[in-house]
Amino acid sequence: MMKNKKVSMAVIRRLPKYYRYLTDLLDNDIKRISSQELSKLTDFTASQIRQDLNNFGGFGQQGYGYNVEDLHKELGRILGLDKTYKAVLVGAGNLGQAIANYRGFEDSGFKIMGIFDKNPKMIGIKLRDVEIEDVDEMSNFIKENDIEIGIICTPKEGSQEIAEEMVKNGISGIWNFAPADLKLPEEITVENVHLNESLFTLSYLLKEND
Amino acid sequence: MMKNKKVSMAVIRRLPKYYRYLTDLLDNDIKRISSQELSKLTDFTASQIRQDLNNFGGFGQQGYGYNVEDLHKELGRILGLDKTYKAVLVGAGNLGQAIANYRGFEDSGFKIMGIFDKNPKMIGIKLRDVEIEDVDEMSNFIKENDIEIGIICTPKEGSQEIAEEMVKNGISGIWNFAPADLKLPEEITVENVHLNESLFTLSYLLKEND
Repeated sequence: MMKNKKVSMAVIRRLPKYYRYLTDLLDNDIKRISSQELSKLTDFTASQIRQDLNNFGGFGQQGYGYNVEDLHKELGRILGLDKTYKAVLVGAGNLGQAIANYRGFEDSGFKIMGIFDKNPKMIGIKLRDVEIEDVDEMSNFIKENDIEIGIICTPKEGSQEIAEEMVKNGISGIWNFAPADLKLPEEITVENVHLNESLFTLSYLLKEND
Repeated sequence: MMKNKKVSMAVIRRLPKYYRYLTDLLDNDIKRISSQELSKLTDFTASQIRQDLNNFGGFGQQGYGYNVEDLHKELGRILGLDKTYKAVLVGAGNLGQAIANYRGFEDSGFKIMGIFDKNPKMIGIKLRDVEIEDVDEMSNFIKENDIEIGIICTPKEGSQEIAEEMVKNGISGIWNFAPADLKLPEEITVENVHLNESLFTLSYLLKEND
Protein backbone atom coordinates (compact mmCIF):
# COMPACT_ATOMS: atom_id res chain seq x y z
CA MET A 1 0.00 0.00 0.00
CA MET A 2 1.16 3.52 -0.81
CA LYS A 3 2.49 5.24 2.29
CA ASN A 4 2.05 9.00 2.58
CA LYS A 5 4.17 9.73 5.59
CA LYS A 6 4.94 13.26 4.50
CA VAL A 7 1.35 14.45 4.24
CA SER A 8 0.96 17.24 6.78
CA MET A 9 -1.60 17.12 9.59
CA ALA A 10 -3.27 20.20 8.08
CA VAL A 11 -3.95 18.26 4.87
CA ILE A 12 -5.02 15.17 6.78
CA ARG A 13 -7.54 17.17 8.77
CA ARG A 14 -9.08 18.53 5.57
CA LEU A 15 -9.66 15.06 4.10
CA PRO A 16 -12.69 14.19 6.27
CA LYS A 17 -14.19 17.53 5.27
CA TYR A 18 -13.78 16.77 1.55
CA TYR A 19 -15.26 13.37 2.25
CA ARG A 20 -18.27 14.94 3.98
CA TYR A 21 -18.93 17.30 1.08
CA LEU A 22 -18.58 14.49 -1.45
CA THR A 23 -21.05 12.42 0.56
CA ASP A 24 -23.51 15.32 0.32
CA LEU A 25 -22.93 15.65 -3.43
CA LEU A 26 -23.44 11.93 -3.87
CA ASP A 27 -26.66 12.09 -1.84
CA ASN A 28 -27.81 14.85 -4.18
CA ASP A 29 -26.99 12.73 -7.20
CA ILE A 30 -24.28 15.05 -8.52
CA LYS A 31 -21.93 13.18 -10.83
CA ARG A 32 -18.96 15.47 -11.26
CA ILE A 33 -17.54 18.62 -9.75
CA SER A 34 -14.70 21.00 -10.58
CA SER A 35 -12.17 22.16 -8.02
CA GLN A 36 -13.70 25.64 -8.43
CA GLU A 37 -17.13 24.34 -7.46
CA LEU A 38 -15.62 22.36 -4.58
CA SER A 39 -13.89 25.56 -3.53
CA LYS A 40 -17.19 27.42 -3.29
CA LEU A 41 -18.64 24.65 -1.14
CA THR A 42 -15.72 24.15 1.19
CA ASP A 43 -14.24 27.66 1.39
CA PHE A 44 -10.79 26.23 0.54
CA THR A 45 -9.19 27.64 -2.60
CA ALA A 46 -9.35 25.54 -5.76
CA SER A 47 -5.57 25.34 -5.87
CA GLN A 48 -5.42 24.13 -2.27
CA ILE A 49 -7.97 21.44 -3.05
CA ARG A 50 -6.00 20.29 -6.10
CA GLN A 51 -2.77 20.28 -4.08
CA ASP A 52 -4.35 18.40 -1.19
CA LEU A 53 -5.77 15.70 -3.44
CA ASN A 54 -2.57 15.43 -5.48
CA ASN A 55 -0.87 14.12 -2.35
CA PHE A 56 -2.75 10.90 -2.95
CA GLY A 57 -2.60 10.60 -6.71
CA GLY A 58 -4.15 12.40 -9.67
CA PHE A 59 -7.90 12.19 -9.26
CA GLY A 60 -9.07 15.10 -11.36
CA GLN A 61 -9.09 15.49 -15.10
CA GLN A 62 -8.43 18.82 -16.72
CA GLY A 63 -11.61 20.23 -18.20
CA TYR A 64 -13.74 17.57 -16.54
CA GLY A 65 -13.09 17.99 -12.84
CA TYR A 66 -13.63 15.17 -10.41
CA ASN A 67 -15.94 12.21 -10.75
CA VAL A 68 -17.85 12.49 -7.46
CA GLU A 69 -18.44 8.78 -6.94
CA ASP A 70 -14.85 7.79 -7.69
CA LEU A 71 -13.34 10.53 -5.55
CA HIS A 72 -15.71 9.73 -2.67
CA LYS A 73 -14.78 6.07 -2.83
CA GLU A 74 -11.07 6.80 -3.10
CA LEU A 75 -11.12 9.28 -0.19
CA GLY A 76 -13.03 6.76 1.88
CA ARG A 77 -10.30 4.23 1.17
CA ILE A 78 -7.58 6.76 2.02
CA LEU A 79 -9.35 7.53 5.29
CA GLY A 80 -9.58 3.82 6.06
CA LEU A 81 -13.38 3.88 5.98
CA ASP A 82 -13.58 0.81 3.75
CA LYS A 83 -12.75 -1.41 6.71
CA THR A 84 -14.37 -2.11 10.04
CA TYR A 85 -12.82 -1.12 13.34
CA LYS A 86 -13.56 -2.73 16.66
CA ALA A 87 -13.70 -0.31 19.56
CA VAL A 88 -14.29 -0.26 23.29
CA LEU A 89 -15.56 2.73 25.22
CA VAL A 90 -14.66 3.48 28.83
CA GLY A 91 -16.67 5.90 30.93
CA ALA A 92 -20.41 5.62 30.37
CA GLY A 93 -21.35 9.03 31.76
CA ASN A 94 -23.28 11.62 29.75
CA LEU A 95 -20.67 12.03 27.06
CA GLY A 96 -19.83 8.32 26.87
CA GLN A 97 -23.51 7.50 26.43
CA ALA A 98 -23.85 10.12 23.70
CA ILE A 99 -20.91 8.64 21.82
CA ALA A 100 -22.14 5.06 22.32
CA ASN A 101 -25.60 6.02 21.06
CA TYR A 102 -24.44 7.89 18.00
CA ARG A 103 -25.53 5.90 15.00
CA GLY A 104 -23.17 7.62 12.56
CA PHE A 105 -20.03 5.97 13.88
CA GLU A 106 -21.25 2.45 13.29
CA ASP A 107 -22.45 3.40 9.81
CA SER A 108 -18.86 4.49 9.09
CA GLY A 109 -17.44 1.15 10.21
CA PHE A 110 -16.62 1.85 13.84
CA LYS A 111 -18.27 -0.77 15.99
CA ILE A 112 -18.34 -0.33 19.75
CA MET A 113 -18.04 -3.92 21.02
CA GLY A 114 -17.64 -3.24 24.72
CA ILE A 115 -18.53 -0.45 27.16
CA PHE A 116 -16.95 -0.22 30.60
CA ASP A 117 -17.47 1.86 33.70
CA LYS A 118 -16.34 1.68 37.29
CA ASN A 119 -19.66 2.83 38.73
CA PRO A 120 -21.53 -0.29 39.99
CA LYS A 121 -24.84 1.45 39.26
CA MET A 122 -24.03 1.58 35.56
CA ILE A 123 -22.97 -2.04 35.20
CA GLY A 124 -25.56 -4.17 33.43
CA ILE A 125 -27.30 -1.24 31.75
CA LYS A 126 -27.54 -1.66 27.99
CA LEU A 127 -26.50 1.00 25.50
CA ARG A 128 -27.50 -0.01 21.96
CA ASP A 129 -27.29 -3.76 22.62
CA VAL A 130 -24.01 -3.53 24.53
CA GLU A 131 -24.16 -4.21 28.24
CA ILE A 132 -21.97 -1.98 30.37
CA GLU A 133 -19.35 -4.06 32.18
CA ASP A 134 -17.00 -3.42 35.08
CA VAL A 135 -13.85 -1.66 33.96
CA ASP A 136 -11.85 -4.53 35.50
CA GLU A 137 -13.09 -6.70 32.63
CA MET A 138 -11.69 -4.34 29.99
CA SER A 139 -8.21 -5.81 29.53
CA ASN A 140 -9.40 -9.34 28.89
CA PHE A 141 -12.11 -8.11 26.58
CA ILE A 142 -9.65 -6.13 24.46
CA LYS A 143 -7.30 -9.11 24.17
CA GLU A 144 -9.99 -11.67 23.43
CA ASN A 145 -11.74 -9.54 20.82
CA ASP A 146 -8.71 -8.01 19.09
CA ILE A 147 -9.96 -4.49 19.76
CA GLU A 148 -8.14 -1.77 17.81
CA ILE A 149 -9.63 1.48 19.10
CA GLY A 150 -10.18 2.67 22.65
CA ILE A 151 -12.57 5.55 23.33
CA ILE A 152 -11.89 7.27 26.65
CA CYS A 153 -14.80 9.26 28.10
CA THR A 154 -13.66 9.24 31.72
CA PRO A 155 -12.74 12.26 33.81
CA LYS A 156 -9.09 13.37 33.73
CA GLU A 157 -8.39 11.21 36.78
CA GLY A 158 -7.65 7.67 35.73
CA SER A 159 -7.52 8.40 32.00
CA GLN A 160 -3.75 7.84 31.74
CA GLU A 161 -3.96 4.46 33.52
CA ILE A 162 -6.84 3.34 31.31
CA ALA A 163 -4.97 4.38 28.18
CA GLU A 164 -1.87 2.42 29.29
CA GLU A 165 -4.00 -0.62 30.04
CA MET A 166 -5.57 -0.37 26.59
CA VAL A 167 -2.19 -0.15 24.90
CA LYS A 168 -0.79 -3.03 26.94
CA ASN A 169 -3.60 -5.20 25.63
CA GLY A 170 -3.10 -4.38 21.98
CA ILE A 171 -5.04 -1.20 21.20
CA SER A 172 -3.26 1.01 18.68
CA GLY A 173 -5.60 3.99 18.43
CA ILE A 174 -7.19 6.09 21.15
CA TRP A 175 -10.01 8.60 20.79
CA ASN A 176 -9.59 10.63 23.92
CA PHE A 177 -12.33 12.84 25.36
CA ALA A 178 -10.76 13.10 28.83
CA PRO A 179 -9.34 16.58 29.47
CA ALA A 180 -5.79 15.27 29.72
CA ASP A 181 -2.85 14.76 27.37
CA LEU A 182 -2.07 11.07 27.43
CA LYS A 183 1.60 10.07 27.51
CA LEU A 184 1.87 6.96 25.36
CA PRO A 185 4.45 5.28 23.10
CA GLU A 186 4.95 7.14 19.84
CA GLU A 187 3.51 4.35 17.69
CA ILE A 188 0.10 4.75 19.35
CA THR A 189 -2.26 7.08 17.52
CA VAL A 190 -4.13 9.45 19.82
CA GLU A 191 -6.86 11.77 18.63
CA ASN A 192 -8.04 14.22 21.27
CA VAL A 193 -11.41 15.91 21.55
CA HIS A 194 -10.96 18.46 24.30
CA LEU A 195 -14.34 20.13 24.64
CA ASN A 196 -13.24 22.57 27.32
CA GLU A 197 -10.41 23.80 25.13
CA SER A 198 -12.76 24.25 22.22
CA LEU A 199 -15.15 26.28 24.37
CA PHE A 200 -12.32 28.42 25.76
CA THR A 201 -11.13 29.12 22.22
CA LEU A 202 -14.63 30.30 21.36
CA SER A 203 -14.61 32.51 24.42
CA TYR A 204 -11.22 34.01 23.48
CA LEU A 205 -12.35 34.75 19.93
CA LEU A 206 -15.65 36.22 21.13
CA LYS A 207 -13.78 38.61 23.38
CA GLU A 208 -11.38 39.58 20.60
CA ASN A 209 -14.22 40.28 18.16
CA ASP A 210 -16.11 42.33 20.70
CA MET B 1 -8.49 46.57 26.41
CA MET B 2 -5.38 45.31 24.62
CA LYS B 3 -6.28 43.80 21.25
CA ASN B 4 -4.17 40.96 19.90
CA LYS B 5 -5.52 40.65 16.42
CA LYS B 6 -2.32 39.25 15.05
CA VAL B 7 -2.06 36.27 17.36
CA SER B 8 -2.25 33.15 15.18
CA MET B 9 -4.92 30.50 15.63
CA ALA B 10 -2.16 27.99 16.46
CA VAL B 11 -1.15 30.11 19.47
CA ILE B 12 -4.76 30.73 20.46
CA ARG B 13 -5.46 27.00 20.48
CA ARG B 14 -2.53 26.39 22.81
CA LEU B 15 -3.75 28.90 25.39
CA PRO B 16 -6.53 26.70 26.82
CA LYS B 17 -3.96 23.92 27.16
CA TYR B 18 -1.60 26.15 29.16
CA TYR B 19 -4.57 27.18 31.23
CA ARG B 20 -5.47 23.56 31.93
CA TYR B 21 -1.93 22.71 33.06
CA LEU B 22 -1.78 25.81 35.24
CA THR B 23 -5.08 24.82 36.84
CA ASP B 24 -3.54 21.42 37.65
CA LEU B 25 -0.43 23.05 39.10
CA LEU B 26 -2.56 25.38 41.19
CA ASP B 27 -4.62 22.42 42.44
CA ASN B 28 -1.35 20.78 43.46
CA ASP B 29 -0.28 23.91 45.33
CA ILE B 30 2.71 24.60 43.08
CA LYS B 31 3.70 28.26 43.33
CA ARG B 32 6.07 28.78 40.43
CA ILE B 33 7.25 27.02 37.33
CA SER B 34 9.95 27.59 34.72
CA SER B 35 9.29 27.41 30.98
CA GLN B 36 11.52 24.28 30.98
CA GLU B 37 9.26 22.59 33.52
CA LEU B 38 6.15 23.71 31.62
CA SER B 39 7.76 22.27 28.50
CA LYS B 40 8.11 18.85 30.13
CA LEU B 41 4.46 18.91 31.13
CA THR B 42 2.99 20.17 27.89
CA ASP B 43 5.38 18.71 25.29
CA PHE B 44 5.78 22.19 23.74
CA THR B 45 9.35 23.53 23.68
CA ALA B 46 10.32 26.06 26.34
CA SER B 47 11.04 28.65 23.65
CA GLN B 48 7.63 28.13 22.09
CA ILE B 49 5.98 28.60 25.46
CA ARG B 50 7.90 31.82 26.09
CA GLN B 51 7.04 33.08 22.61
CA ASP B 52 3.37 32.19 22.97
CA LEU B 53 3.04 33.95 26.30
CA ASN B 54 5.04 36.97 25.13
CA ASN B 55 2.20 37.69 22.68
CA PHE B 56 0.22 38.84 25.68
CA GLY B 57 2.86 40.63 27.72
CA GLY B 58 5.90 39.65 29.75
CA PHE B 59 4.72 37.22 32.39
CA GLY B 60 7.90 35.37 33.27
CA GLN B 61 10.91 36.60 35.13
CA GLN B 62 14.40 35.44 34.20
CA GLY B 63 15.75 33.07 36.82
CA TYR B 64 12.39 32.81 38.55
CA GLY B 65 10.04 31.50 35.90
CA TYR B 66 6.32 32.05 36.11
CA ASN B 67 4.24 32.68 39.18
CA VAL B 68 1.58 29.98 38.73
CA GLU B 69 -1.29 31.85 40.35
CA ASP B 70 -0.62 35.10 38.47
CA LEU B 71 -0.18 33.38 35.11
CA HIS B 72 -3.31 31.27 35.64
CA LYS B 73 -5.34 34.35 36.48
CA GLU B 74 -3.93 36.32 33.57
CA LEU B 75 -4.53 33.51 31.06
CA GLY B 76 -8.06 33.14 32.39
CA ARG B 77 -8.58 36.84 31.74
CA ILE B 78 -7.08 36.56 28.25
CA LEU B 79 -9.39 33.63 27.49
CA GLY B 80 -12.36 35.62 28.72
CA LEU B 81 -13.03 33.21 31.58
CA ASP B 82 -13.36 36.01 34.13
CA LYS B 83 -16.80 36.83 32.81
CA THR B 84 -20.06 34.93 32.47
CA TYR B 85 -21.58 33.96 29.16
CA LYS B 86 -25.23 33.23 28.55
CA ALA B 87 -25.89 30.40 26.14
CA VAL B 88 -28.75 28.50 24.56
CA LEU B 89 -28.54 24.96 23.29
CA VAL B 90 -30.57 23.60 20.38
CA GLY B 91 -30.97 19.88 19.81
CA ALA B 92 -31.51 17.91 23.01
CA GLY B 93 -30.55 14.51 21.62
CA ASN B 94 -27.80 12.36 23.09
CA LEU B 95 -25.01 14.82 22.45
CA GLY B 96 -27.05 17.88 23.39
CA GLN B 97 -27.99 16.25 26.69
CA ALA B 98 -24.37 15.37 27.38
CA ILE B 99 -23.31 18.98 26.77
CA ALA B 100 -26.19 20.37 28.83
CA ASN B 101 -25.36 18.03 31.71
CA TYR B 102 -21.65 18.73 31.75
CA ARG B 103 -20.91 20.58 34.96
CA GLY B 104 -17.52 21.90 33.85
CA PHE B 105 -18.91 24.47 31.44
CA GLU B 106 -20.97 26.26 34.06
CA ASP B 107 -18.01 26.25 36.45
CA SER B 108 -16.06 28.09 33.74
CA GLY B 109 -18.72 30.77 33.39
CA PHE B 110 -20.83 29.37 30.54
CA LYS B 111 -24.44 29.21 31.65
CA ILE B 112 -26.97 27.38 29.51
CA MET B 113 -30.14 29.45 30.03
CA GLY B 114 -32.39 27.78 27.48
CA ILE B 115 -32.60 24.42 25.72
CA PHE B 116 -34.68 23.90 22.60
CA ASP B 117 -35.78 20.94 20.51
CA LYS B 118 -38.35 20.37 17.80
CA ASN B 119 -39.35 16.93 19.05
CA PRO B 120 -42.64 17.31 21.00
CA LYS B 121 -41.66 14.33 23.19
CA MET B 122 -38.65 16.23 24.51
CA ILE B 123 -40.49 19.44 25.33
CA GLY B 124 -41.06 19.92 29.06
CA ILE B 125 -38.29 17.54 30.11
CA LYS B 126 -35.78 19.15 32.46
CA LEU B 127 -32.02 19.04 31.98
CA ARG B 128 -30.24 20.49 35.01
CA ASP B 129 -33.08 22.84 35.98
CA VAL B 130 -33.71 24.00 32.43
CA GLU B 131 -36.92 22.89 30.82
CA ILE B 132 -36.65 21.96 27.15
CA GLU B 133 -38.79 24.29 25.04
CA ASP B 134 -40.06 24.20 21.49
CA VAL B 135 -37.47 25.49 19.06
CA ASP B 136 -40.05 28.05 17.86
CA GLU B 137 -39.55 29.84 21.19
CA MET B 138 -35.80 30.22 20.64
CA SER B 139 -35.72 33.58 18.87
CA ASN B 140 -37.72 35.42 21.49
CA PHE B 141 -35.76 33.79 24.27
CA ILE B 142 -32.43 34.88 22.79
CA LYS B 143 -33.62 38.47 22.38
CA GLU B 144 -35.24 38.74 25.79
CA ASN B 145 -32.30 37.25 27.66
CA ASP B 146 -29.43 38.86 25.73
CA ILE B 147 -27.94 35.47 24.92
CA GLU B 148 -24.40 35.59 23.53
CA ILE B 149 -23.59 31.98 22.67
CA GLY B 150 -25.57 29.44 20.69
CA ILE B 151 -24.74 25.74 20.97
CA ILE B 152 -25.98 23.71 18.01
CA CYS B 153 -26.37 19.98 18.60
CA THR B 154 -28.84 19.27 15.82
CA PRO B 155 -28.29 17.03 12.81
CA LYS B 156 -26.80 18.65 9.72
CA GLU B 157 -30.31 19.31 8.41
CA GLY B 158 -31.63 22.56 9.81
CA SER B 159 -28.37 23.64 11.42
CA GLN B 160 -27.78 26.51 8.97
CA GLU B 161 -31.28 27.91 9.51
CA ILE B 162 -30.93 27.69 13.29
CA ALA B 163 -27.57 29.43 13.16
CA GLU B 164 -29.00 32.25 11.03
CA GLU B 165 -31.94 32.64 13.40
CA MET B 166 -29.51 32.82 16.34
CA VAL B 167 -27.42 35.50 14.64
CA LYS B 168 -30.51 37.50 13.63
CA ASN B 169 -31.49 37.66 17.28
CA GLY B 170 -28.15 38.87 18.57
CA ILE B 171 -25.94 35.84 19.16
CA SER B 172 -22.30 36.51 18.32
CA GLY B 173 -20.67 33.15 19.03
CA ILE B 174 -21.69 29.67 17.93
CA TRP B 175 -20.39 26.36 19.23
CA ASN B 176 -21.35 24.03 16.43
CA PHE B 177 -21.56 20.25 16.83
CA ALA B 178 -23.65 19.71 13.69
CA PRO B 179 -21.65 18.05 10.91
CA ALA B 180 -21.93 21.09 8.65
CA ASP B 181 -19.93 24.23 7.94
CA LEU B 182 -22.16 27.15 8.77
CA LYS B 183 -22.10 30.10 6.38
CA LEU B 184 -22.44 33.18 8.56
CA PRO B 185 -21.31 36.82 8.53
CA GLU B 186 -17.60 37.22 9.17
CA GLU B 187 -18.07 38.99 12.49
CA ILE B 188 -19.74 35.90 13.98
CA THR B 189 -17.37 33.58 15.81
CA VAL B 190 -17.95 29.91 15.03
CA GLU B 191 -16.12 27.10 16.80
CA ASN B 192 -16.79 23.69 15.29
CA VAL B 193 -16.58 20.32 16.98
CA HIS B 194 -16.92 17.83 14.16
CA LEU B 195 -16.80 14.43 15.84
CA ASN B 196 -17.02 12.46 12.62
CA GLU B 197 -14.04 14.31 11.19
CA SER B 198 -12.06 13.65 14.33
CA LEU B 199 -12.85 9.94 14.16
CA PHE B 200 -11.95 9.79 10.45
CA THR B 201 -8.63 11.48 11.19
CA LEU B 202 -7.95 8.80 13.80
CA SER B 203 -8.82 6.14 11.26
CA TYR B 204 -6.47 7.68 8.65
CA LEU B 205 -3.59 7.87 11.10
CA LEU B 206 -4.22 4.31 12.34
CA LYS B 207 -4.00 3.05 8.80
CA GLU B 208 -0.82 5.02 8.11
CA ASN B 209 0.86 3.72 11.28
CA ASP B 210 -0.10 0.15 10.51
